Amino acid sequence: MADQPDPDVIRKVIANYMQRFTAQDRAGWLEQFAADAWIEDPVGTPRRHGHEEIGAFWDETHSLAEVSLVPLGITTVIGREAIFTMQARPVLGDQTYAIDIIDLMTFDDDAKITSMRAFFDASTMRPLET
Amino acid sequence: MADQPDPDVIRKVIANYMQRFTAQDRAGWLEQFAADAWIEDPVGTPRRHGHEEIGAFWDETHSLAEVSLVPLGITTVIGREAIFTMQARPVLGDQTYAIDIIDLMTFDDDAKITSMRAFFDASTMRPLET
Repeated sequence: MADQPDPDVIRKVIANYMQRFTAQDRAGWLEQFAADAWIEDPVGTPRRHGHEEIGAFWDETHSLAEVSLVPLGITTVIGREAIFTMQARPVLGDQTYAIDIIDLMTFDDDAKITSMRAFFDASTMRPLET
Repeated sequence: MADQPDPDVIRKVIANYMQRFTAQDRAGWLEQFAADAWIEDPVGTPRRHGHEEIGAFWDETHSLAEVSLVPLGITTVIGREAIFTMQARPVLGDQTYAIDIIDLMTFDDDAKITSMRAFFDASTMRPLET
């Protein structure tokens, strides 16, 4: 048997990650992480370890604005790693903004996320062109 | 003073990295790497360490096809790390193909590349739509 998770299962986790974040499904989003997972979001800030700290990150993010996460076209799965492009679209007042993000994730045997690093520069946020 | 290289200098290295690769400027491309740099290209294959092994990688790549590297829109520099999207466009016969790549690099104080990991899936190669 394969000693690593099916790439299609990892792809589904990544799709769910964006969909559940956007749908404000906190429990569904959080359960995709392994118990000892960590996140660094954005890269350069202190890492948050475990469901409690990652849940606190969720709460902080969702307290700032309503944010949608939309795939930007590239998703590459190699073994236990995956990298993908997405766009965060926070709504502030009556304006929707856009920030391009590259997320790098690692996964365990059960395709749970063990680490996530989100590369983006908040200063690149601009009004979404529709 | 800052203890890390200027983000604009790193951006220039990344631009040069693609331009020199495309222009077949082997020496100019190679000199952007620190002496003890390593590359993993694509991710999942053995790492090549130092200018000699990285130069051998160049030779292998350029023996297969003429390849252009074109920016795909995202370049994010955070401290000593940078991540960017690009498209490799190999020419095989009279057809140009396209593969989307995400490159993750680290840099030393002099903005030399100390590591590079290229995330892509060769099976996603398709004819370039013009």
